[in-house]
Amino acid sequence: MAGTRSAKIGELALIEQIRHRFSSPASRSLALGIGDDCAILRPSPGSEILVTTDFTLENRHFRRDLHPAQAAGHRCLARGLSDLAAMGATPLAAFLSLALPGPMLKTAHGRSWVAEFFDGIDSLARQHRTPLAGGDTSESPADLILADIILIGSAPAGRSLRRSGARPGDVLYVTGALGGAHAELTQLLGTSRRSRAKSSEPHPHFFPHPRLEVGSALLHRRLATAAIDLSDGLSTDLTHLCESSRVRAEIDAAALPVHSLTAKLPADQALNAALNGGEDYELLFSAPAKTRVPARIAGVSITRIGQLYSRSSRKPLITLHHADGNATELKPAGWEHFTS
Amino acid sequence: MAGTRSAKIGELALIEQIRHRFSSPASRSLALGIGDDCAILRPSPGSEILVTTDFTLENRHFRRDLHPAQAAGHRCLARGLSDLAAMGATPLAAFLSLALPGPMLKTAHGRSWVAEFFDGIDSLARQHRTPLAGGDTSESPADLILADIILIGSAPAGRSLRRSGARPGDVLYVTGALGGAHAELTQLLGTSRRSRAKSSEPHPHFFPHPRLEVGSALLHRRLATAAIDLSDGLSTDLTHLCESSRVRAEIDAAALPVHSLTAKLPADQALNAALNGGEDYELLFSAPAKTRVPARIAGVSITRIGQLYSRSSRKPLITLHHADGNATELKPAGWEHFTS
Repeated sequence: MAGTRSAKIGELALIEQIRHRFSSPASRSLALGIGDDCAILRPSPGSEILVTTDFTLENRHFRRDLHPAQAAGHRCLARGLSDLAAMGATPLAAFLSLALPGPMLKTAHGRSWVAEFFDGIDSLARQHRTPLAGGDTSESPADLILADIILIGSAPAGRSLRRSGARPGDVLYVTGALGGAHAELTQLLGTSRRSRAKSSEPHPHFFPHPRLEVGSALLHRRLATAAIDLSDGLSTDLTHLCESSRVRAEIDAAALPVHSLTAKLPADQALNAALNGGEDYELLFSAPAKTRVPARIAGVSITRIGQLYSRSSRKPLITLHHADGNATELKPAGWEHFTS
Repeated sequence: MAGTRSAKIGELALIEQIRHRFSSPASRSLALGIGDDCAILRPSPGSEILVTTDFTLENRHFRRDLHPAQAAGHRCLARGLSDLAAMGATPLAAFLSLALPGPMLKTAHGRSWVAEFFDGIDSLARQHRTPLAGGDTSESPADLILADIILIGSAPAGRSLRRSGARPGDVLYVTGALGGAHAELTQLLGTSRRSRAKSSEPHPHFFPHPRLEVGSALLHRRLATAAIDLSDGLSTDLTHLCESSRVRAEIDAAALPVHSLTAKLPADQALNAALNGGEDYELLFSAPAKTRVPARIAGVSITRIGQLYSRSSRKPLITLHHADGNATELKPAGWEHFTS
């Protein structure tokens, strides 16, 4: 564990708490975890290493009055795992840089928040056999919780799914359902108080499922030519994929697998949630038209939503075909939830 | 690059600036840099992977009124590189998560600060052939610059220098000089205004030198049994090494290579700077007594400062022998500079 610059009791206690909490079962790839200047990983021969980092900053990515601590922890790790999923990679280890407001560790309420935040990380980490192998701790310079999660994964060398591999003629698919995270958040912001997550209901915003098994299957079964995770929203992430692969896309509004939670919204808002809501952490991928893509992979539904074409100066980058037969240009409109 | 959740102009412009600024020469180990869900690294066969993360938070690790932006950037990367140096590793790539206050990119002064911060990272990165391969960007939730640097390195499998490898009888060495960073900072805090770094003077606080070449030589020439970087201060970091290796240490105050900048301080403060100042980013390492350790490695002086012994209930973990013949217990007293 790098850089615990102070000998302050709070910080050392925090590190001990992390070390104890995440004394996860030994991993074959993790040679040395928390406690030295660096952690040491030993990926299997013939693999390449994937790295992604994602901030989880209070009031930007979550709010203490809105998100249960467990959801904040779950979402923190899910962001990184989803980036690995998008490339078909298998997680090797996670690293957490965490800055907490000084007073937090001095109150029972604060310590309980931190413990539940770790619970949220830990239960998702165990589900995907991802040891927490290190990171950094600091006192926050503001009354704000600041986290940065780093995921290291591996994939067979040269086989990682990139955004740039799609070709004209490829068919576009998405996993799961879209707009659920946005619908849940809209509901939360409407009530404006923290709700306890009930396990009987789906919580796509609080507890999204990174699609690691699907990503891995797409890679190992050589199904996909390109992939990206839907973190910013379909309109924005499909734009990224089209730009990286130098293709254009046509998608069908009626084909979009809209999340059941959006049923509480008016139809135009439901479509907007599916197109621009973001944070669903589903995968968007392309496959050759001749490839037989199963209707479900690893228990997750796969839906064909459109097709890719050669670029044309007379056609927009993304065309959206509506149910009434009209077609419009779809511009990237993924949005930022907590911007003031 | 993971998680650029917004389509906000400022953030996209920032990513473009980073991508352009760090379009570093192709690296054999970096298969894919900024621009996908993850970066892809391909370490050479037979190597293990080292990972470290370090926060650089405004008002905790630097102050805008005290540190030139270039020094803030340099120190940010130096923290991570020094952790790799301590394990004898070679850098493969760096990742930067960076959150900036919204108004910063809207003023010429703010943009200039950011450009100089990148300059500080970039010039040190080039010196150590470390490509910036990705990261995350966000608007800061406070009027504070928040950075987290992640370093990935490699070393021959099983050969990384750990804190735990020291044995009773081993001799203790440090690289370079101690207390300089503390002396410079003391001087800065005395004047309480930002000084421009002059290249004619040493700036161990603003521009510390991570000892990558020394660390690499210690590993490849099989000189060291254990190593740690002096980020927290000798008293604290030697405690870590003794605890990890289950040994105790005796060191000689008169042998400590005290930095020339401490000459401006009274003698007791100079010794305190060398023992507890921290942030010198020199290396502390142990070697068997029979090993011939050169007086200089890669142009950096190497000084013998003490020896390690078997633990004893009658002896403190660290004994400090003073010039007058007295011996006292040395307790970990590395301190936090910007704690309020």
